Amino acid sequence: MPKLPDAVHIIEVGPRDGLQNEPEHIATDTKLAFIRALQAAGLPTIEATSFVHPKAIPQLADSGAVATQLDHSAACEWMALVPNDKGLQRAIDAGLKRIAVFTAASDAFTEKNIRMSVAQSLETFAGVVEQARSAHMTVRGYVSTAFVCPYAGEIDTAKVVDVSKALWAMGCDEIAISDTIGAAAPTDIHRVVEAVAQALPIDRIALHLHDTYGTALANIYAGLEIGVTRFDASAGGLGGCPYAKGASGNVATEDLVYLFDRMGIQTGVDLGKLFAASNLIAKALNRDLPSKQWQRLHAASIA
Amino acid sequence: MPKLPDAVHIIEVGPRDGLQNEPEHIATDTKLAFIRALQAAGLPTIEATSFVHPKAIPQLADSGAVATQLDHSAACEWMALVPNDKGLQRAIDAGLKRIAVFTAASDAFTEKNIRMSVAQSLETFAGVVEQARSAHMTVRGYVSTAFVCPYAGEIDTAKVVDVSKALWAMGCDEIAISDTIGAAAPTDIHRVVEAVAQALPIDRIALHLHDTYGTALANIYAGLEIGVTRFDASAGGLGGCPYAKGASGNVATEDLVYLFDRMGIQTGVDLGKLFAASNLIAKALNRDLPSKQWQRLHAASIA
Repeated sequence: MPKLPDAVHIIEVGPRDGLQNEPEHIATDTKLAFIRALQAAGLPTIEATSFVHPKAIPQLADSGAVATQLDHSAACEWMALVPNDKGLQRAIDAGLKRIAVFTAASDAFTEKNIRMSVAQSLETFAGVVEQARSAHMTVRGYVSTAFVCPYAGEIDTAKVVDVSKALWAMGCDEIAISDTIGAAAPTDIHRVVEAVAQALPIDRIALHLHDTYGTALANIYAGLEIGVTRFDASAGGLGGCPYAKGASGNVATEDLVYLFDRMGIQTGVDLGKLFAASNLIAKALNRDLPSKQWQRLHAASIA
Repeated sequence: MPKLPDAVHIIEVGPRDGLQNEPEHIATDTKLAFIRALQAAGLPTIEATSFVHPKAIPQLADSGAVATQLDHSAACEWMALVPNDKGLQRAIDAGLKRIAVFTAASDAFTEKNIRMSVAQSLETFAGVVEQARSAHMTVRGYVSTAFVCPYAGEIDTAKVVDVSKALWAMGCDEIAISDTIGAAAPTDIHRVVEAVAQALPIDRIALHLHDTYGTALANIYAGLEIGVTRFDASAGGLGGCPYAKGASGNVATEDLVYLFDRMGIQTGVDLGKLFAASNLIAKALNRDLPSKQWQRLHAASIA
């Protein structure tokens, strides 16, 4: 029996990564109710929105209104994606204390996504991170397409390590190794995470997994074996990446919580309350959610 | 990086476990076309049907017609479920060389399912297995509800070991440790399979997993780590257990093949041909299938 961590930290990305690609307009109040329900379920960190340009992601055009109305005195840690100096200023104005910056291990991907090479993105973010830290904020760095890029194919492990180190060196305190198109298998997790863990502390590496091929929980289990304790997930399995063809939703928070609960690993999350939060957004979207656990609880609730 | 097997053996149970609970009548010719397409995809073992009483499972009332028309000279290994002496005779008459018998690690489950205690079922099967072996057949033994029983809850590991040993002792050459309601997590797999492997060879232990909570691929990965090389799956993720409330389909063969392919583990199965086989049955059922990989390939095929 492999030795697994006693407790994990789930980073809820549903309000940002989960909703950003939804074509249906969602009212700011609905988003806030969703976020507050997630907070009530015990999620310790919630990525609440993104300060990208409203034209790029119209769904999150109300990021300022959402972030301003969060309870900034709560124990819950709020986070928002920030693409540049302007986005950072909006995050600061909204009272946020934690931001995330977003690059990738594939130039083909960053060119399509943020119209910069990886190196250019790192230059841009170095300034953003420096300013954020001067403003007493903390910063997460995303390394997207850390396994397979939808445009460039297989990604060199060394490139993931280099980008992770660069983000760490500029002051990020957490690196989210991201399987943007959900193509990884547990052997990929071992290969890449073990390499990154040579360069930075294992407890500051997060896994951000999509579940396109159904491998996400297997990959999370592989992560646990290596000692990873930080995992991203979205309520109900909301999501999908607008820039990555074939990318389905994030792994579902409910499914993670079931897995961890069953293995006796503490999450601090109440599954029933989490289901209530997901239901709130399922009703707003007027559709079922992909999470297996959500579907089970939903079937039981209407039986 | 854990040491994993180089190759695995997938037991396709779609035509039996996958279809048995489908309310829609499926024509014998459609079943045979499905089975032959699975064979063409390279699946080495196919559980083709079940010789239970037609009243118990009307969908498989044509088991004799299906089994008789299989190509018994093919390299593909055919298997059928047999509940008693009468079923065995029908399997022999149909030209089958391999059968499966079905019990559980929970008396509450066998009482509901086959109206016998586990001990009574083992007595019944001892006679069936003896006759089958006299007729030069080989026999698989299923140990259902090996982790959690929908009626009795958590299952004692020792009970799984005892039932596995009893089936082995009576002449079964393979024991299928079954997560009937799909509740297990990787730690359960380690606990139970490691205990069973103390009593019988690891290469004769199969994992039969349902994917109710999305944990099946994680559990398969845990099985690989222990050295398990035999895994049940159903094309497209067909299935569900008529006796187990809340049990969703078997883990999907496509999703298994993706996982194994990605990890460089040989299966002998062609994913494209497997998708064609699943499509055949999806059309007959006139609905989408739960497999993530099937959904992806299906979306691509209609794009």
